Amino acid sequence: MHPALQSLKARFAELDDLRRTVSVLHWDMSTHMPQDGTGSRGRMIAAVEKIAHEKLIEPAVGELLETASGLPAATLAAEDRAFLRLAQRQFARASKIPPAFKAEFLHHMTETYDVWVHARKANDFNAVAPFLEKTVMYSRAVSDYFNSGETAWVHPMDPHIEDADPGMTTAGLRTLFAALRRELVPLVKELSSREQPRTDFLSRVYSKPRQMEFLNWLARHLGYDFNRGRQDLTYHPFMTKLGAGDVRITTRVDETNLCDGLFSTIHESGHAFYELGIAPGLEGTILGYGVSAGIHESQSRLWENLVGRSREFWTYFYPHLQAHFADALQDVSLDEFHRGINRVQPSLIRTEADEVTYNLHVMIRFDLEAQLLEGSLKAKDLPAAWNDRYESDLGVRPASDAQGCLQDVHWFYGSVGGMFQGYTIGNLFSAQCFDAALKAHPDIPEAISRGDFSTLHAWLKENIYRHGSSLFPQELIRQLTGQDLSPAPFLAYLGRKYS
Amino acid sequence: MHPALQSLKARFAELDDLRRTVSVLHWDMSTHMPQDGTGSRGRMIAAVEKIAHEKLIEPAVGELLETASGLPAATLAAEDRAFLRLAQRQFARASKIPPAFKAEFLHHMTETYDVWVHARKANDFNAVAPFLEKTVMYSRAVSDYFNSGETAWVHPMDPHIEDADPGMTTAGLRTLFAALRRELVPLVKELSSREQPRTDFLSRVYSKPRQMEFLNWLARHLGYDFNRGRQDLTYHPFMTKLGAGDVRITTRVDETNLCDGLFSTIHESGHAFYELGIAPGLEGTILGYGVSAGIHESQSRLWENLVGRSREFWTYFYPHLQAHFADALQDVSLDEFHRGINRVQPSLIRTEADEVTYNLHVMIRFDLEAQLLEGSLKAKDLPAAWNDRYESDLGVRPASDAQGCLQDVHWFYGSVGGMFQGYTIGNLFSAQCFDAALKAHPDIPEAISRGDFSTLHAWLKENIYRHGSSLFPQELIRQLTGQDLSPAPFLAYLGRKYS
Repeated sequence: MHPALQSLKARFAELDDLRRTVSVLHWDMSTHMPQDGTGSRGRMIAAVEKIAHEKLIEPAVGELLETASGLPAATLAAEDRAFLRLAQRQFARASKIPPAFKAEFLHHMTETYDVWVHARKANDFNAVAPFLEKTVMYSRAVSDYFNSGETAWVHPMDPHIEDADPGMTTAGLRTLFAALRRELVPLVKELSSREQPRTDFLSRVYSKPRQMEFLNWLARHLGYDFNRGRQDLTYHPFMTKLGAGDVRITTRVDETNLCDGLFSTIHESGHAFYELGIAPGLEGTILGYGVSAGIHESQSRLWENLVGRSREFWTYFYPHLQAHFADALQDVSLDEFHRGINRVQPSLIRTEADEVTYNLHVMIRFDLEAQLLEGSLKAKDLPAAWNDRYESDLGVRPASDAQGCLQDVHWFYGSVGGMFQGYTIGNLFSAQCFDAALKAHPDIPEAISRGDFSTLHAWLKENIYRHGSSLFPQELIRQLTGQDLSPAPFLAYLGRKYS
Repeated sequence: MHPALQSLKARFAELDDLRRTVSVLHWDMSTHMPQDGTGSRGRMIAAVEKIAHEKLIEPAVGELLETASGLPAATLAAEDRAFLRLAQRQFARASKIPPAFKAEFLHHMTETYDVWVHARKANDFNAVAPFLEKTVMYSRAVSDYFNSGETAWVHPMDPHIEDADPGMTTAGLRTLFAALRRELVPLVKELSSREQPRTDFLSRVYSKPRQMEFLNWLARHLGYDFNRGRQDLTYHPFMTKLGAGDVRITTRVDETNLCDGLFSTIHESGHAFYELGIAPGLEGTILGYGVSAGIHESQSRLWENLVGRSREFWTYFYPHLQAHFADALQDVSLDEFHRGINRVQPSLIRTEADEVTYNLHVMIRFDLEAQLLEGSLKAKDLPAAWNDRYESDLGVRPASDAQGCLQDVHWFYGSVGGMFQGYTIGNLFSAQCFDAALKAHPDIPEAISRGDFSTLHAWLKENIYRHGSSLFPQELIRQLTGQDLSPAPFLAYLGRKYS
């Protein structure tokens, strides 16, 4: 191997260790950290991130990249070419951001997270408003750092979107979302006017420890390997990769909301399957992660919805669930359960939304964060704008900010901008992806009804997971489907499901 | 503040963030990490430690220290003088060790830890022997890096002891230990020949979840604040400080050994009280930690033994314990319980040893690690040497290495050398310290019998905890007692207790 390439690999492997270290600090902060640990945790995260950032943008990295980019492509393995492309991208993008600014922003983020956790519990937007205002300011400053040269943008949200979903832009997504919206709005209207299935049983009392028992069993049964991960409780469920053999999921349980835990666990398991299925040769390198927010979400949503809300899935699992909660579910048939968990009804909480209305939740956030970044919406006016949009788009108005603009962690532990489009990209691609799997293996649904996920796992691993970040999103989508990202398969799936 | 001092403080604060980061990685590894997380965790710990080490020994730090040491002492606050003294010490000592060597050793440690966890479970010394051999080699190399200039040593264990217990040496401790031993050996003999109290009830069945409930309640009742910490299970209990408001304890529970969990929890709570009681102004600086292994251990042992095995303590707690385990303890009186937990009997496991034999366990380890470092004992011969010493010193011979030389984590996650003397220093000083507390407040035992620890907490905080690392061990001992470390008060305490 050329010494420049070898040296780059060693440097990026060290950066990867630091990145995972930050993930451990964050996982702990979000699951087990005692209440008063917050202040010093913020400093620790900021310290490690700052060092990682400084190391990434060292001039020596730029020189090594230049040397390596001069190597004849034919002399490089495909994996090395993919590595160099991603390393170049990470170096170029990080070099736009001054390390001191980055550290300050990160420290602000961890402070904000803690304030948000309390503000959400106390339904107190005012407590977190000044923090959000500062986050908008920082996020806009990030945009401005990118507004020159190759990264000049049309909309200030573009650099944030490019970070999460390479190749996408605000304008492109607006067009895509508008097309989707045109079909969804009448569909929601039509489905809401139908006779509604019963859902009373979903809000009966399900004890939290009993739910956790089932959720651990369920994750294991879906194929999640507890030797290579674990499941903990948190405020806002997430998956995190702390090592090739350490990919953790989190969930939350609500004593009177059976769906919350069930679909969080299935969703995060889907994310974990992606990370756990990456080719061993890519592990420990920057290629050893899912490639984008949208592609990652396509995998979690595939498991949560196309698999986890299917009739076949519950044909197998419902008897187990019913036996586990014999009192609460004794009068509920499989058919009633399946119809109940698929009820379409405009509601307030994104993570609990049905598959039809879900993307409308995303579009509200997408538009609002664009406005916050543009400066046309002030942080303090977010609750009113949020509530108005819910009323106009979904016909429901939050009675509290906890049920409104405080519900999602994203703006309170991250940037404002580029945080939500991945969910809709994911929904759209999940349908394209599942179509391709069914085309290759039409027997998948039948296997699922026997609790057998092996064919699906193998197909996803072969076609998506193993690539890690060596194919960029559009390359992966085209390679898999022969097409670009499109709303048509998703809309066709909804049509079939609800016809 | 002088700019050099300010700059040093900022640099050491960053180092402190990295140090705590490593502690989070280690806490997680020892409590919740899934089985397959080991490999990458080792790399992460090594990466962060290596960076911290490189940053500590940067020439700029040496220059700043030189500038700061030229400042007139009278212009500096006492706290700043203490800071500069400790910073100088850390810089000088770290500068002896090449960063690449340090990283390699650390990586080896985390690998070894994992092998040890399995080897201990499987009672398989051979599995871990080659790792231990390497640890000895690394540890000896550390000694040799120190064998010149101001840090030249008489015995290769001296630099390791100086690290953990500043001001102590192998020769000095040998003298101290010999004096202690002369008194202990006949005392053990005499006490063993007495009629033994019943202890059958200590190995009845105590369910693990019920134990954990009690241990959490107990820690809280002793004054451990769960807003500033938490308690988890591990193989080998420890306390770790992850932030001023995040000081965690760990324990272990054995279904048929009631004492294991009880005294682990009280012991680690004692460590935590020390860290939680440090003056807020020292927090986030290198002075914001307990000053040495021995002084730290004096606090854990004070709570575990002088408080936690006293008649007064159980006068208050035994009715609670008995109510919690009504079936197992119904036929056991307070008097029987108190006598049972204080039974003196030579045994195999250090952490479960009574107060009289405990220091004999320590001396065995102290001598063996000195021999390993000298090269007069080979790692592969450790089990035989260990077992022979137990037979000659305590009259018992381990039937397995799990009950023998594999029982302690220290040599399997750390150096060989300097790992054990702190326990005996701690035992000796715990008695000196408790004598001083009782002299100031003769009513402490009576308060303890009412479950009231407030006077003791306040006295310890004022006289020990708040100083953090601003007084070195001998300064602290002299300030508190007007004397040096001495075995006499400890022996007098044993004499009173067992007369």
